[in-house]
Amino acid sequence: MQQLRRDPIIGRWIIVNYNQVNQPSDYQSESVEKKRVGKLCPFCSGNEDKTPPEIYVDRPVHARANEPRWNLRVIANKFPALRIEGDLERQGIGLYDQMNGVGAHEVIIETPYHEKDLADLSPDEVAKIILAYKHRCVDLRKDRRFEYIIIFKNHGASAGASLEHSHSQLIALPIVPKKTREALRGAELYYGYKERCVYCDIIRQELEEKERLVSETEHFVVFTPFASCSPFETWIIPKTHGSQFYHIREDLIGELAAVLQETLWRLKKVLTDPPFNFIINTAPIQHEQELDYYHWHIEIVPKLTRSAGFEWGTGFYINPSPPEQAAKWLREIK
Amino acid sequence: MQQLRRDPIIGRWIIVNYNQVNQPSDYQSESVEKKRVGKLCPFCSGNEDKTPPEIYVDRPVHARANEPRWNLRVIANKFPALRIEGDLERQGIGLYDQMNGVGAHEVIIETPYHEKDLADLSPDEVAKIILAYKHRCVDLRKDRRFEYIIIFKNHGASAGASLEHSHSQLIALPIVPKKTREALRGAELYYGYKERCVYCDIIRQELEEKERLVSETEHFVVFTPFASCSPFETWIIPKTHGSQFYHIREDLIGELAAVLQETLWRLKKVLTDPPFNFIINTAPIQHEQELDYYHWHIEIVPKLTRSAGFEWGTGFYINPSPPEQAAKWLREIK
Repeated sequence: MQQLRRDPIIGRWIIVNYNQVNQPSDYQSESVEKKRVGKLCPFCSGNEDKTPPEIYVDRPVHARANEPRWNLRVIANKFPALRIEGDLERQGIGLYDQMNGVGAHEVIIETPYHEKDLADLSPDEVAKIILAYKHRCVDLRKDRRFEYIIIFKNHGASAGASLEHSHSQLIALPIVPKKTREALRGAELYYGYKERCVYCDIIRQELEEKERLVSETEHFVVFTPFASCSPFETWIIPKTHGSQFYHIREDLIGELAAVLQETLWRLKKVLTDPPFNFIINTAPIQHEQELDYYHWHIEIVPKLTRSAGFEWGTGFYINPSPPEQAAKWLREIK
Repeated sequence: MQQLRRDPIIGRWIIVNYNQVNQPSDYQSESVEKKRVGKLCPFCSGNEDKTPPEIYVDRPVHARANEPRWNLRVIANKFPALRIEGDLERQGIGLYDQMNGVGAHEVIIETPYHEKDLADLSPDEVAKIILAYKHRCVDLRKDRRFEYIIIFKNHGASAGASLEHSHSQLIALPIVPKKTREALRGAELYYGYKERCVYCDIIRQELEEKERLVSETEHFVVFTPFASCSPFETWIIPKTHGSQFYHIREDLIGELAAVLQETLWRLKKVLTDPPFNFIINTAPIQHEQELDYYHWHIEIVPKLTRSAGFEWGTGFYINPSPPEQAAKWLREIK
């Protein structure tokens, strides 16, 4: 049996194929290669001179800047997708549009230890990373050229990581990206009709049905979305409505850190260290006020299947592991 | 220098990075593996009993069905993404939507010879493939459950091909896919404002500016789009307006075949046999009339870069080979 499922926010469809359900072991060939400790790595402690200077750092009071003894560093990306200098000039060329590539591209080095992954860190260490994300957003949004900040992580070469030392990235953009606009538009339509946040409704339904639930804490819910594009796609969403990630209350960061670390650990155990991306989906940064219809969340997308002409041409995705079964595997791992 | 460029139809942005321009040789590690001739292949001549029976075939008059001596075969996919049997039942589950996975999934075996790629075939042989596409569309659209037919090809394992014997695929879908709806909406908006087809305007601008032009024949234009997502993305588009691929005049199929074969040959030469997908973008099949605002075209997307968290999270793409340079390389190859 095949089933078509529609994403309730952006209207994308997926195909769940129950005839050829993939077990976690079917994805083992995709596991991330073991790290080659000892290779010269610019992100390791002691190699601070191999990177641009720190923009933000977590270190003991008496340690010196751009020297060892740090817990976490944020630096400018040496090979940025966009550059911080310059004005935003938008111009037309016939029917085309172009703009200067102005933006910020930063790297969050999550740990001084080469061999550790995010899933191996303590909740306290992960909390420092989330706090760094928040601080960098608060700082960068003062620059009025920027409309959106995307925070993401690539784990494993096939998920796009070019260095194996655990790090995440942040890009501030002069435009609200297409994917965010789609989600905002879909969520606003739903709100216009129901006068309720679609994400709040999803949380309610997932907590009631429980079959896609991975875990739950006082303030956060972890589940596999009904119309997951990727096998084992997993969302972490706050129970309390809020559209801006960087507005997260500081007293909840520890709880979110524990949930994120535990969820990544579950994925690592069930799927034997899969390559993955995670993305923090949040509202455009220049909105001063919270939006009633949008709800920030973390989307974790393991890279276990290859997208081909069909996916590229249609925007349909084929998911060979039903989200209900993925959630069960993730829930039951000890 | 980095530059942001906007797609004039769907409004997607790309980043062209002029600081680290990739040459064709930078992509050689992505080349498709050499074929292992001699391995048992269900698509080879003589192995007809290893596949479902023929739905469509090109063979000499006296040859027998499902036996050797064919030039091209169309068969049902043995592992279909969707199945032809069943009614379309759409139902809600709380705020979610699901539907039976009804559709058709066919494979076009392009040649009886295992070692030949589409780029190695003669224009006459390629014309038979395009004719098969057209015939299958005309036949499948009689089934009123289907709204859209996507025809695509995956070349190389990293572009999603699971068998190396040259083949393309066709999937008939009970809904118009998101990506097509986006293009239709964007093109309709443009038409509403300008009263001209955006694709016709693109053809005019490309023929005038010439810097992204790869080749031109009496009825077709080949160019690298201004906001190409992928390095060396290439479009083949008919000069005469038409929204339905399957309405193509039979006397133009030979010309299109020669253009497609030559374009794939250029890509194979310049990029040393890159993995690629191609997709025929066309209007929904149940429109009896031609649409004034939409224009069918073939999109060829080499798979040379890996999309990571940034691309997934935003819908932005980073293209390390400016389309103008890609067109120059493709134009100049002998």
